[in-house]
Amino acid sequence: MKSVYRTHHCGQLDKSHVGQEVVINGWVQKRRDLGGLIFLDLRDRSGVVQVVFNPEISEEAARLADKVRSQYVLAIRGEVIERSPDTINPKMKTGEIEVQGKELEVLNESKTPPFMIEDDVDVDETVRLKYRYLDLRRPVMQRTLQLRHQAMQVARRFLDRNGFVEVETPMLTKSTPEGARDYLVPSRVHHGEFYALPQSPQIFKQLLMVSGMERYFQIVRCFRDEDLRADRQPEFTQIDIEASFLEPEQFLSMMEELVAELFQETIGLDVPRPFQRLTYQEAMERYGSDKPDLRFGMELVDLSEIVKESGFKVFASTVSGGGKVKAINAKGSAGWSRKEVDQWGQTAQELGAKGLAWLAFKEEGLKGPVAKFLSEDEVAQIGRAMDAQTGDMILFVADKPQTVNDVLGELRLRLGKSLNLIDEKAFRFAWITEFPLLTYDEEDGRYYANHHPFTMPMEEDIPLLETDPGKVRAQAYDMVLNGYEIGGGSQRIHRREVQEAMFKALGFTMEEAREQFGFMMDAFEYGAPPHGGIAFGFDRIVMLLAGRNNLRDCIAFPKTASASCLMTEAPSPVDEKQLDELHIQVKEKPSHKKEI
Amino acid sequence: MKSVYRTHHCGQLDKSHVGQEVVINGWVQKRRDLGGLIFLDLRDRSGVVQVVFNPEISEEAARLADKVRSQYVLAIRGEVIERSPDTINPKMKTGEIEVQGKELEVLNESKTPPFMIEDDVDVDETVRLKYRYLDLRRPVMQRTLQLRHQAMQVARRFLDRNGFVEVETPMLTKSTPEGARDYLVPSRVHHGEFYALPQSPQIFKQLLMVSGMERYFQIVRCFRDEDLRADRQPEFTQIDIEASFLEPEQFLSMMEELVAELFQETIGLDVPRPFQRLTYQEAMERYGSDKPDLRFGMELVDLSEIVKESGFKVFASTVSGGGKVKAINAKGSAGWSRKEVDQWGQTAQELGAKGLAWLAFKEEGLKGPVAKFLSEDEVAQIGRAMDAQTGDMILFVADKPQTVNDVLGELRLRLGKSLNLIDEKAFRFAWITEFPLLTYDEEDGRYYANHHPFTMPMEEDIPLLETDPGKVRAQAYDMVLNGYEIGGGSQRIHRREVQEAMFKALGFTMEEAREQFGFMMDAFEYGAPPHGGIAFGFDRIVMLLAGRNNLRDCIAFPKTASASCLMTEAPSPVDEKQLDELHIQVKEKPSHKKEI
Repeated sequence: MKSVYRTHHCGQLDKSHVGQEVVINGWVQKRRDLGGLIFLDLRDRSGVVQVVFNPEISEEAARLADKVRSQYVLAIRGEVIERSPDTINPKMKTGEIEVQGKELEVLNESKTPPFMIEDDVDVDETVRLKYRYLDLRRPVMQRTLQLRHQAMQVARRFLDRNGFVEVETPMLTKSTPEGARDYLVPSRVHHGEFYALPQSPQIFKQLLMVSGMERYFQIVRCFRDEDLRADRQPEFTQIDIEASFLEPEQFLSMMEELVAELFQETIGLDVPRPFQRLTYQEAMERYGSDKPDLRFGMELVDLSEIVKESGFKVFASTVSGGGKVKAINAKGSAGWSRKEVDQWGQTAQELGAKGLAWLAFKEEGLKGPVAKFLSEDEVAQIGRAMDAQTGDMILFVADKPQTVNDVLGELRLRLGKSLNLIDEKAFRFAWITEFPLLTYDEEDGRYYANHHPFTMPMEEDIPLLETDPGKVRAQAYDMVLNGYEIGGGSQRIHRREVQEAMFKALGFTMEEAREQFGFMMDAFEYGAPPHGGIAFGFDRIVMLLAGRNNLRDCIAFPKTASASCLMTEAPSPVDEKQLDELHIQVKEKPSHKKEI
Repeated sequence: MKSVYRTHHCGQLDKSHVGQEVVINGWVQKRRDLGGLIFLDLRDRSGVVQVVFNPEISEEAARLADKVRSQYVLAIRGEVIERSPDTINPKMKTGEIEVQGKELEVLNESKTPPFMIEDDVDVDETVRLKYRYLDLRRPVMQRTLQLRHQAMQVARRFLDRNGFVEVETPMLTKSTPEGARDYLVPSRVHHGEFYALPQSPQIFKQLLMVSGMERYFQIVRCFRDEDLRADRQPEFTQIDIEASFLEPEQFLSMMEELVAELFQETIGLDVPRPFQRLTYQEAMERYGSDKPDLRFGMELVDLSEIVKESGFKVFASTVSGGGKVKAINAKGSAGWSRKEVDQWGQTAQELGAKGLAWLAFKEEGLKGPVAKFLSEDEVAQIGRAMDAQTGDMILFVADKPQTVNDVLGELRLRLGKSLNLIDEKAFRFAWITEFPLLTYDEEDGRYYANHHPFTMPMEEDIPLLETDPGKVRAQAYDMVLNGYEIGGGSQRIHRREVQEAMFKALGFTMEEAREQFGFMMDAFEYGAPPHGGIAFGFDRIVMLLAGRNNLRDCIAFPKTASASCLMTEAPSPVDEKQLDELHIQVKEKPSHKKEI
């Protein structure tokens, strides 16, 4: 062959190419023999095309084609021909044509892969992760990575156009005292000292504001050494943004624009703006969650006032003891079997409730253990509050306010799924605002910052920092989408007296604060501008864009729940010599046998 | 003030705004008092504008303005007015106008900064690094970071347009056996095991080719725990690129286009293409360097043939002993004083030469210690070979070939600078090709790969892998610019038999190779396509674009030569508890006192 490299991509060929001679490259997807002809499906990044080898046209090529196997890498020269009407494959993008093979060169051979290279492959995820390079050959994975690429480019173009400057911040930095566990990196040059990998570029982006950068962004890797859940990775990617001299309202609407453009340009979704807003308080009350899935209703309704003197003692005593009674309406579920009712009750208990009371509005009248304890008036009021119709099932939880919200919030999500109330094609964005600034830790006997210690309190709450820190609301906002938090940010403290009050509430003297946040505190004394920012969880956004439900499917080389890479087998033991140079040694594993 | 945030940027205001009311934000650059008026220069990211406060217009604003100090953060409302002709400042972009201040709000105060916030600041770099947030306020630093941002966007747009997909590869990965020292990250979950920070995404980008990604790029942080030179950082940024199914020639010309677009779109430089090409051998012979500065001539000339039987014994014996005699022509330098000649001779010795012979072509005849030993014919031949005119100074080094090239290569650079031969505005790009594949390490008694063990040999040299590995040339290429290597890449081995021969030459059995490169070797058995790639040193490219000569000036938060960050004081000691969780402990510092 004169040149073995492609003139066209496989997936690009159609009737407009008929009669042209082309060279294509790619991997053998399928080979079959049919009446003396050899058919190969050749796949490249763009798609698949069928190539037919006829010994009467080229004996040599047909002979070679007969020997190739799945995943061989080929170069093929041939002519694009129309398929006969009966062989047209409408399911294939290139199904109206095929390539008549004239020359074939095997660029590389392949062993038989451990699983089929196709979208609906039935194989354990651990095998896919071990052979990630083959897993990524599957079209669905290629599409996801391309989508991720596109989303990155769109975000950058938007931010660039809006005057944000991309600045790279250090990966080898200083361990931060508050927050999640750091990944540490021992220093060879400085005996006994360590770098930390950044949990976020928070401090650096704020310093860039002090430095007058005014608008900063970065699509940046961050690290948290936490026990992993399904939707966490030890390293993850953030779209990190910070801006000075901008009204928070202007900033939020710019961020809405960014996200809208991201969804528009990648999956063609038209995102209505402005986004719905809910205060943290409201989100918790109505959805039992600070990242509510707004694709369906079934809101939590507070019935405490109605049942506070109810004959159902559990309700009455809960309310009088400072607790709440709230309920959700599982519409049309009055007909649940005893078993179904019990199962949901058990779920509620697993989630932390003492029990799940229920009231079914049946044709034949009210059913449920609480029915007989409720007065007619109470039932009527509950019916109105819950918008209950015949056929509906009301589920109650009575407990401490937080438990009630947590349990009903989670039940709501599971019921929404189970009752098919969720439009999987819908995207419901919202801002959650006015988060509590601080949370009291009983064990440590002190307050901790919910976001970080540089988050600005709401102006009207600043005096509460001294008198009732738990009540202080933050100028903090999360962007939520379909039950996920996709971004979180805040206005930052730029004035010294507010920062001092904040540290005092956290139980630090200014001396201690200076020790921990030294250079940051220094920096803020040289003219910090008013500023704020946000960080978007990029992996999660890609997951939602791609309509996937596993974060690992949206990352090229992800880690497992034990933070391992099954392909490279990282982490792994290293040479003693390497550790010597770093002035560290591994401790002996604690023995689980006890001496007698 | 109704809104304290800007309607205009400071640097944007000009005569077209005269008569408009504006709000501006920024930092006080300068304050001065003049005949009862207060003048403030206000600076933001875009530039500086003068604001004048007249107590007769606003007493309150003038009173406040009188109190502000350098680096205070202000919001100012005022009217843009024309300056009177005698006060126009032609050096200032906004020098035809000023803002008549009507309201002023101090958004934040500032302590007196430790150095002046201006371009030509005379302060030790360590102070600038400690107060980096102030250093980055200086316009020259802002311009450099903006240039860096622009360069990133241009590179990404070019690569996106050309079908390259941006894929993020892991930062927590596996320690690689060959190459520079890794930064290690202890694992908390896996006792005694470590991640390594990537020296480059080399393995991952090749696996992405196996996975059919076809064209990949990433602007990515890489890490090397090496002793730092002025132009090295422990973490640095690469534009990392890999492509499959592409003729190396096509790839190189695409990379030329990328770089040309980068220089065109950022600094408006028109880069001629194709780039000059030099083989490694040729570059070493003619410039004594594999990254020659081609902005000036003064090439190294091999005179061995001419002087091999010279009466100057050092020359003759060097040649007969297998060495070389080469020279450069310091044009117009025949008039050097004895002291100058001695200084250059001493430099040559410091660089490793035994001495520096010289021959001055003076009006009054030949001068120099070797003159009397050379025959008339030898002088004539040397004169022709060196293109020597009256007034020229020829400098000779006679030694082992490598020493000759190293010493004269470095002398050439220093003389080029000292004689003002270098056009500082010029950019001379070239490709250096055909690098040696392997280098023999006397100490270890084995060959090492010069690039990495997956670099493809030149086809015609493959048989030499068995017979004479040191002679094998690689399909490797560096892009050089003005004496810097700005990129390096190669075609990769994708065929098993070549990879086996390579490992054999490196002294590995396939078993050992599999142990070290296990998953990589596996991956290559499932249909690796022909592929190759390159990595550009982005920090260095920015440095050259910005016309700077210190890499640290082109990185927002750089580290010192001892890999410290003077601002955050990273690395630093950490809590014993953190180390416990990571199952490591710091070794005791070796005592330098010896027991008697």
